Amino acid sequence: MLIVPEAACPDLLPFDAAFDAVEAVFAAMARGEAYNFPVIREAIGHEDALYGFKGGFDRAGSALGLKAGGYWPNNQARGLINHQSTIFLFDPDTGRVQAAVGGNYLTAARTAAASAVSIKHLSRPDSKVLGMVGAGHQSAFQMRAALRQRKFEKVIGWNFHPEMLSRLADTAAEAGLPFEAVELDRLGAEADVIITITSSFAPILKADQIRPGVHLACMGTDTKGKQEVDPELLARATVFTDEVAQSVSIGEAQHAVASGLIAESAITPVGAVIAGQHPGRVSAEEITLFDGTGVALQDLAVASAVVARAQAEGKATEVAI
Amino acid sequence: MLIVPEAACPDLLPFDAAFDAVEAVFAAMARGEAYNFPVIREAIGHEDALYGFKGGFDRAGSALGLKAGGYWPNNQARGLINHQSTIFLFDPDTGRVQAAVGGNYLTAARTAAASAVSIKHLSRPDSKVLGMVGAGHQSAFQMRAALRQRKFEKVIGWNFHPEMLSRLADTAAEAGLPFEAVELDRLGAEADVIITITSSFAPILKADQIRPGVHLACMGTDTKGKQEVDPELLARATVFTDEVAQSVSIGEAQHAVASGLIAESAITPVGAVIAGQHPGRVSAEEITLFDGTGVALQDLAVASAVVARAQAEGKATEVAI
Repeated sequence: MLIVPEAACPDLLPFDAAFDAVEAVFAAMARGEAYNFPVIREAIGHEDALYGFKGGFDRAGSALGLKAGGYWPNNQARGLINHQSTIFLFDPDTGRVQAAVGGNYLTAARTAAASAVSIKHLSRPDSKVLGMVGAGHQSAFQMRAALRQRKFEKVIGWNFHPEMLSRLADTAAEAGLPFEAVELDRLGAEADVIITITSSFAPILKADQIRPGVHLACMGTDTKGKQEVDPELLARATVFTDEVAQSVSIGEAQHAVASGLIAESAITPVGAVIAGQHPGRVSAEEITLFDGTGVALQDLAVASAVVARAQAEGKATEVAI
Repeated sequence: MLIVPEAACPDLLPFDAAFDAVEAVFAAMARGEAYNFPVIREAIGHEDALYGFKGGFDRAGSALGLKAGGYWPNNQARGLINHQSTIFLFDPDTGRVQAAVGGNYLTAARTAAASAVSIKHLSRPDSKVLGMVGAGHQSAFQMRAALRQRKFEKVIGWNFHPEMLSRLADTAAEAGLPFEAVELDRLGAEADVIITITSSFAPILKADQIRPGVHLACMGTDTKGKQEVDPELLARATVFTDEVAQSVSIGEAQHAVASGLIAESAITPVGAVIAGQHPGRVSAEEITLFDGTGVALQDLAVASAVVARAQAEGKATEVAI
């Protein structure tokens, strides 16, 4: 079994590799060559923790395995991060375990890659202003990934806790771009692409705040009850997602579908656009919305990329198991 | 993360340790201190493989994690065993991965421990003759575990392929006991304890072949459709199991419950007997039957025992993850 520790992952996964891996596996899902297993997620009744497994099999990419871990809300007080996960890869030909890879950095990277894939395939090519809603840990990953997809000239942002907006300003500055903190009305009126990456349980962006032609990547909703935008916005938009089953049950679309504003059949896997089965955006006036829920195959895809690179560079630790 | 490879497991898990671990976790389940998560089991559409995860949490034993792996029917032709699994333990306090342990030997050991636990708690103390139905890889583990529970004087056995019975003869000889190959009528008429450990899809033992006072441990049925004994036998017996939910869905009791011969409510977790919540066998004439389906908590219990011993003996390999 190869071991790739958490600390080695950032160097082993250049952003382009994460992007390519996620783009490829979304297309494989659309072609029916890769699928996710049912998700196990348990409130274990200890430390208020949520623990579970997400698995899948990508025949095209020869990736089989799972991500195991969860959310331990008391970790921060111990100097650990609250989300803890590990990815395990298995040999699809024999069932033998192949690799264990630290999953914390990879989770942020594959989530950023997913929204970047949606921006590449769905946003207007002439998009100039990136709007960020949310300034937590993952927002920097999201912004860096987005900025590679279009020639953005400016970043604007909003956060529930304004004192955290320095993260967005600093990340924009890394890329040599100006940043401005704005109210939501201005964010909706000026942004060409909007990323929401919060842990909100109530709509933040209203439908009337969004102008035509925008692409939204809603990346924060991954649980029943969470919500980042007005369901009416989904009714006005063409809605894409990573996996329809998750989108309607734990994703941003759960609310619009439950209230009858949109039908499940109106939601398109972004992989269908990548694979050429769906045209994606068809006009400069269309609002596109990507509901990023996070699927196991993304985790397996980036972990496979990391393991391949670790082997190529002689950086993988091999242990007998 | 600690690594305990497959090859190290037999020495690190003396039989008594496996027995104690499984007995303790069955009792914890009965007390509501340990539970299994839903099982994921997928036909992945590659190599005819079945792959999946079984997880659980034992608060009493502080064991959290899963067994991942499955059945690869083409492995044998490659010189590998068909069942391949690995057990992963997580720290219940932080969610961080603690250990990866080879799961192949441990699966056989925990299955043998389960039937031995049932023999200790349910068979007549004066049992003298052990009857074995099945002579495959696991039968030797089963026999060795059973022989420690009662003062058996003889082993008799039957197998669909009689040429494999030498395994049973050799294993009995290890323990200094005589072995005799018999027909099923004689096996039922003479055995005080019967273990069935086959991969049968049709009943082998008929109800009328079994005499009063026998304890049966039916260990082979772990999938929808498998079956080792006549459902009428369950109607005549007091039925125990590891986990009722698995017993009625994928265990030996699936057939008797589906045909209305017994009610789900008539099946008792053997942990209730261990924990003193149920009297177990109440007469020398009673037929007791243990439906061993195999639960994740058994895997976690023996893996935890192995890891503790590996640490105590300085034999665990620690790797950064």
